[in-house]
Amino acid sequence: MAIEAEVVRPGDPSERVADVINLLKQRFGERLSTSSALREQHGHTTTWLRNEPPDAVVFAQSTEEVAEIVQTCAAHKVPVIAFGTGTSLEGHVNAPLGGISIDLSRMDKILEVNSEDLDCRVEAGVTRKQLNSYIRDTGLFFPIDPGADASLGGMAATRASGTNAVRYGTMKDAVLGLTVVTADGRIIRTGGRARKSSAGYDLTRLFVGSEGTLGVITELTIRLFGQPESVSGGICPFPDVESACNAVITTIQMGIPVARIELLDSLQVRACNSYSKLDLAETPTLFLEFHGSEAGVQEQSEMFSSIAEEFGGGPFEWTTVAEERTKLWTARHDAYWAGKGLRPEADIVATDVCVPISRLAECVGETARDIEQEGLLAPIVGHVGDGNFHVQVLVNLDDPEEKRKADGFIERLAVRALKMEGTCTGEHGVGQGKQKYMRREHGDAIDYMQSIKRAFDPDNLMNPGKILPQS
Amino acid sequence: MAIEAEVVRPGDPSERVADVINLLKQRFGERLSTSSALREQHGHTTTWLRNEPPDAVVFAQSTEEVAEIVQTCAAHKVPVIAFGTGTSLEGHVNAPLGGISIDLSRMDKILEVNSEDLDCRVEAGVTRKQLNSYIRDTGLFFPIDPGADASLGGMAATRASGTNAVRYGTMKDAVLGLTVVTADGRIIRTGGRARKSSAGYDLTRLFVGSEGTLGVITELTIRLFGQPESVSGGICPFPDVESACNAVITTIQMGIPVARIELLDSLQVRACNSYSKLDLAETPTLFLEFHGSEAGVQEQSEMFSSIAEEFGGGPFEWTTVAEERTKLWTARHDAYWAGKGLRPEADIVATDVCVPISRLAECVGETARDIEQEGLLAPIVGHVGDGNFHVQVLVNLDDPEEKRKADGFIERLAVRALKMEGTCTGEHGVGQGKQKYMRREHGDAIDYMQSIKRAFDPDNLMNPGKILPQS
Repeated sequence: MAIEAEVVRPGDPSERVADVINLLKQRFGERLSTSSALREQHGHTTTWLRNEPPDAVVFAQSTEEVAEIVQTCAAHKVPVIAFGTGTSLEGHVNAPLGGISIDLSRMDKILEVNSEDLDCRVEAGVTRKQLNSYIRDTGLFFPIDPGADASLGGMAATRASGTNAVRYGTMKDAVLGLTVVTADGRIIRTGGRARKSSAGYDLTRLFVGSEGTLGVITELTIRLFGQPESVSGGICPFPDVESACNAVITTIQMGIPVARIELLDSLQVRACNSYSKLDLAETPTLFLEFHGSEAGVQEQSEMFSSIAEEFGGGPFEWTTVAEERTKLWTARHDAYWAGKGLRPEADIVATDVCVPISRLAECVGETARDIEQEGLLAPIVGHVGDGNFHVQVLVNLDDPEEKRKADGFIERLAVRALKMEGTCTGEHGVGQGKQKYMRREHGDAIDYMQSIKRAFDPDNLMNPGKILPQS
Repeated sequence: MAIEAEVVRPGDPSERVADVINLLKQRFGERLSTSSALREQHGHTTTWLRNEPPDAVVFAQSTEEVAEIVQTCAAHKVPVIAFGTGTSLEGHVNAPLGGISIDLSRMDKILEVNSEDLDCRVEAGVTRKQLNSYIRDTGLFFPIDPGADASLGGMAATRASGTNAVRYGTMKDAVLGLTVVTADGRIIRTGGRARKSSAGYDLTRLFVGSEGTLGVITELTIRLFGQPESVSGGICPFPDVESACNAVITTIQMGIPVARIELLDSLQVRACNSYSKLDLAETPTLFLEFHGSEAGVQEQSEMFSSIAEEFGGGPFEWTTVAEERTKLWTARHDAYWAGKGLRPEADIVATDVCVPISRLAECVGETARDIEQEGLLAPIVGHVGDGNFHVQVLVNLDDPEEKRKADGFIERLAVRALKMEGTCTGEHGVGQGKQKYMRREHGDAIDYMQSIKRAFDPDNLMNPGKILPQS
């Protein structure tokens, strides 16, 4: 270790932070910055929450460096916030108590690809697109695709998913093992490369979704999948969101192994038409994709076509031509920016919930009516095969009346999902934005989350002020 | 609560146990037993480890009763061991420090089946066969099938899997939510019915695989799957285990969605022929099953057939006739008893490991040579699609020389798997038998498992002496 752990001196927090910054500056030189633009960027990102910048940002280049930084912070009781690409939505990287943001974006090495085992090991700063472009020639791919080109470390930390989750699962399923720097600056490894194990507590899945509050993920071993022999995909219009949702429910119940099944409401279709130069009918629309053998995807596409018809939807126009599919899915992934285009000067409050699929039509329907009643501009788009959907509320947060309406709507949405045996967030995570729903969702189980937090991070230095409600 | 928590009196452990038994006897009457036959049965089961019976067995009938029992035990600092069907293999239900075995087999109610959502909620004592027979008419099934007709609570507690895991996953994947009685006798609920969630720490997966050391699972919400439209299955002989393993590796890598792919070595085939009245060629053999549409299973079966041929195996004889398949799979599930039939008077030491699939042929091959060199009688059978295999060592544990050989073999097998980046147990769990490999497998991560244990169970009363090595 280049830096010796020092005894904590009494003194106010700002002195301790100043000491840490001095020490890290000596060690990391130019790779530590206290510029206000950089600090703000590391607090803000794509969230709608108020910016709370860290005191400094350090760019780490190895697990050992992360351990050094955490040790230094731990010795001075200064908070640590891990930062990937900053594309989280619920204030995950804000620094309400100040502290040091560890930027992992330069830890971008793909350490090994084991194509025989369909797995790979990467540093936490590798992004999903970087990985996919690196492995393209191996015949493999990594399916998990949140809208943004997020870092894999960040995706694990927030238990991300995306459009392919209905078939390939979420980060919970994709991560086989992790390297983690814990609150005292130790380096541990969880899980491994075996496809399954019954050897002890599942620390891997405890860190997945812990949002940096239990440790900093620095490396991941993750599953890959064979690129499907054939892919078909297309779009299918419906008269209303309920009929679209009912077609989804039937598709899932019949066990059709759909790879992607996404709902865009009329407003979202209009936004995508405008942003991505499409000319779709402006009605609730499902985007679908099927993966399999040539005969398989044809069979699946035809089965879905009949289901859509049964619910008054269609025609289901599908194709196996890659360019056409890519255009559609790029539009789908750009939905956030397309939505913003509906009111470019507005703030976006992006939120998500997830319910059992039998309640999906009801939940989306009630939500659409709520949007209408409140007169909000808020497109709906969702991974409906999982019962998960997003609402993107376009508001001026500086206007108290608009803010009040948006807050009320989002709270009603979360509570509606919980009443339907769902969750207040399917994939965005808790961060700061959804802490207030945690006890309602988990009841006394929250106390056991708190006790894990205390056991792993007794001084509350790892991304403090996130996930767990202040009690 | 019918029983008031009492202040712990000083006194030796046997007095405290006697007090607890008295209190529970008053409350549960005939449902508490101290008969030595019943106590021994609740310590022993199918494990090869020395019997360490609990001091008493209570048959609980509800979550609230389990909470009462745990509260009483907690107040007197008496250990609690959860018991399902007693089919675990590594001494999981032994009571090395005595205590109260809570038998959950009478908690056998299927509480709800949500066929629209492909999930159900059951009490922990429901067995997998009971569930499958209950839901047969819904068109759904529960795929996870360890050899025994285990209880679902026990399967969750040990992170069980089985022959279908290669396609449908393990209990880690199947469990959506749990009701758990914690060490202080509180009732908490983890997870929920949404298909995915990013709302906080994944307590569900922390309890799955915790073997009763963090709490007693009393109810489970689990995923179900649609019964496949068509099933094909059959057997395929190979000249040696390596070529069979190589065919498996290629099948997995090509992404053929095989539902089951199981290896039996020559000795295991001989055992099954004799036990299940089959007349298979006594050579390494794969048992396979494909689920899908009629065209799909035909396509998959033909693809596998070509792969087998490529590795010198075959012919692959497959059928879609249910009776023939059932006969084969019943034989496969009876492999443990068939193995025992090779030397009926012997003890069975059943062990398992799991390695990355690229190392499978090498690991099975080295293991087969080790068996031969030691002159052990030890059939090999495994869920090779996951890289997981079992060895069933038939020995006389009272003969020190035989025991020494078996112990040495099992230790070499575990170490071999760990050297190949695998795990010391793919599905049997740790219990008492594999504690000694835990630090070797997990390194310092063990300390974090210990800290979770201390946080959840500070008095070490929940199934003490399991999973975590004595440090």
